[in-house]
Amino acid sequence: VKKITVRLNDRPYDVVIAAGLLRDAGERIARWKPQRTVVVTSPTVRKYWGATLESSLRAARLRHAVLEIPDGEQHKNMRTVAGLLRGFVRAGVDRQSVIVALGGGVVGDTAGFAASIFMRGVRVVQIPTTLLAQVDASIGGKTGVNLKEGKNLAGTFHQPQMVLVDPEVLTTLAARELRAGLFEAIKCGVIRDAELFHYLEKHRAALLCRHEGALEKMIAAAVKVKADVVAADERESGLRRILNFGHTVGHALEAATGYRSLLHGEAVAWGMVAAAEIGVNAGVTRALDAERIIDLTMEYGPLPPVKAKVDRVLKLLHADKKSVAGVPHFVLAKRIGATKIVGGIRPEIIRAAVEGINQA
Amino acid sequence: VKKITVRLNDRPYDVVIAAGLLRDAGERIARWKPQRTVVVTSPTVRKYWGATLESSLRAARLRHAVLEIPDGEQHKNMRTVAGLLRGFVRAGVDRQSVIVALGGGVVGDTAGFAASIFMRGVRVVQIPTTLLAQVDASIGGKTGVNLKEGKNLAGTFHQPQMVLVDPEVLTTLAARELRAGLFEAIKCGVIRDAELFHYLEKHRAALLCRHEGALEKMIAAAVKVKADVVAADERESGLRRILNFGHTVGHALEAATGYRSLLHGEAVAWGMVAAAEIGVNAGVTRALDAERIIDLTMEYGPLPPVKAKVDRVLKLLHADKKSVAGVPHFVLAKRIGATKIVGGIRPEIIRAAVEGINQA
Repeated sequence: VKKITVRLNDRPYDVVIAAGLLRDAGERIARWKPQRTVVVTSPTVRKYWGATLESSLRAARLRHAVLEIPDGEQHKNMRTVAGLLRGFVRAGVDRQSVIVALGGGVVGDTAGFAASIFMRGVRVVQIPTTLLAQVDASIGGKTGVNLKEGKNLAGTFHQPQMVLVDPEVLTTLAARELRAGLFEAIKCGVIRDAELFHYLEKHRAALLCRHEGALEKMIAAAVKVKADVVAADERESGLRRILNFGHTVGHALEAATGYRSLLHGEAVAWGMVAAAEIGVNAGVTRALDAERIIDLTMEYGPLPPVKAKVDRVLKLLHADKKSVAGVPHFVLAKRIGATKIVGGIRPEIIRAAVEGINQA
Repeated sequence: VKKITVRLNDRPYDVVIAAGLLRDAGERIARWKPQRTVVVTSPTVRKYWGATLESSLRAARLRHAVLEIPDGEQHKNMRTVAGLLRGFVRAGVDRQSVIVALGGGVVGDTAGFAASIFMRGVRVVQIPTTLLAQVDASIGGKTGVNLKEGKNLAGTFHQPQMVLVDPEVLTTLAARELRAGLFEAIKCGVIRDAELFHYLEKHRAALLCRHEGALEKMIAAAVKVKADVVAADERESGLRRILNFGHTVGHALEAATGYRSLLHGEAVAWGMVAAAEIGVNAGVTRALDAERIIDLTMEYGPLPPVKAKVDRVLKLLHADKKSVAGVPHFVLAKRIGATKIVGGIRPEIIRAAVEGINQA
């Protein structure tokens, strides 16, 4: 069992990583003494892993209910949140209860948000079932849903009590989803861990074949990057912004394609390619490092082509919530393992990078 | 100018109280250097005080927009919040912006909630325009909206940057609204300030005639009670619950009457009468103190009669978010100026008190 602590000042919490962990989840959740336990999940995840979690909750003698939200990013919205809030009332959730988010990023973000605003805050345990959520979304307390006008525009900071990562659940993950998570791991390498980046370069075959040992090692390294950055900057006022490497363009691509044709990790992958190009043209990234970033990203493909109008993407870039007075700020790679945040990049440079990925 | 500081560890903030303060609001808001300023208000408040605030914002050269939400507790819901979020996007709100809540409790709670979840938190300045909001709702960072299933079931803790209290705006307040605020001031006296309670006993005529000096003195004392309790317990884990004197039954009455026939302050007034009765029968409150509480409350009436089914009120009491595993906890008066929180009160005692106010 690997344990990585997110060292927040107010309340540190653990990310526990171990194959088969889901079968012990009930016992671990019972330590929080929930008055009621409500599992939020999606139909697909429930089909594969719902019974395992539920029997472990029963074994731990926890009174529980299960609420489903539909699969898919298009359901990560205020309407789904309102439905969960009503479900919490029906299930008898109170401030001594625990919400368990069993699923990918959509489930984790939406359930976390609903829990954070129900009675002004109910405790959450995250059990991520996609690689993307395991290495990224489930850690750090960011919750939220999309508005029509943009991604994650409504949300809160609400740290979980703990995060349970079971690599076994990745056995039922679609190959495309696995790759989407690997892109986010590449990001962790670029921004802070050259060794992880190198590991991803060397062990592509083992990781794509879901070799358990390779997955655990890679997940633990990526989680460590995320945990350290979050602990240094809980509220995203400074350091935490480096986690947005590839996300400035990535978010705009997702919005421009209606959150349908690209998975989040795939949009970030294209965003990393764009950020590497922008980095070179802005004089921040060396051409050799940019090449390594782009090559590694493409090797973990295939990536679906970007089918979005360039002007629409550029417009959405300026509306991003990390923009300062409408000027997008970019996280760029100084070298593999280190970043620099840069504003005021010339519009031609941004346009060229967006056109580049559009033609790829 | 009276200034009372809410001494939170992370970020203390001031409640500023002065007649005519609204005319200086722009200048005070400008100190926060908002990229955009968005006023959230209701049609009625805007009619009386919108122009004063807007001209002060213009004088301070702040780029601003105004968003309206309909008057009335029935609009304090998730739908109104979703509308505000869309309005924030249209108005160009970002994390460097400030939302100004100009209005009563509904505006303050709803605008504060929307601001707290927009981009995971935008700064808020509260300018309460009802007495109830001035002495209570605008201070302490509780935000939220009602679900069909109960009051304030969705919300956050989100402290304002500052609270601007201008007693002049009370000149346009309906008499019934003024009385509703005075009930909340009585509560502040009961729970923590025997002198304020005595002041309310002695200066009824001056306060009901809106004598400016009397109002300022009373508001400052009530704000001090609220500020001190909030500073001692930001997240309502202990002391802060004493602010709920009269609210356990009060909330149930509001829900049972569909948030229509009773103002919040009026429901709390009936709740204080019930809490006084329960206090005596539970052996916590002396009969003489209960009589003073009930007399003072009735003197600031008239109160609309309670028209709710007793069984419905009792059922709602158990669903209150302060209930622990379905057992309602009551804040009772040990004496004027001091309280005790009591669980496990015999059902007959609660029923008798609810029946008592129903027949009054």
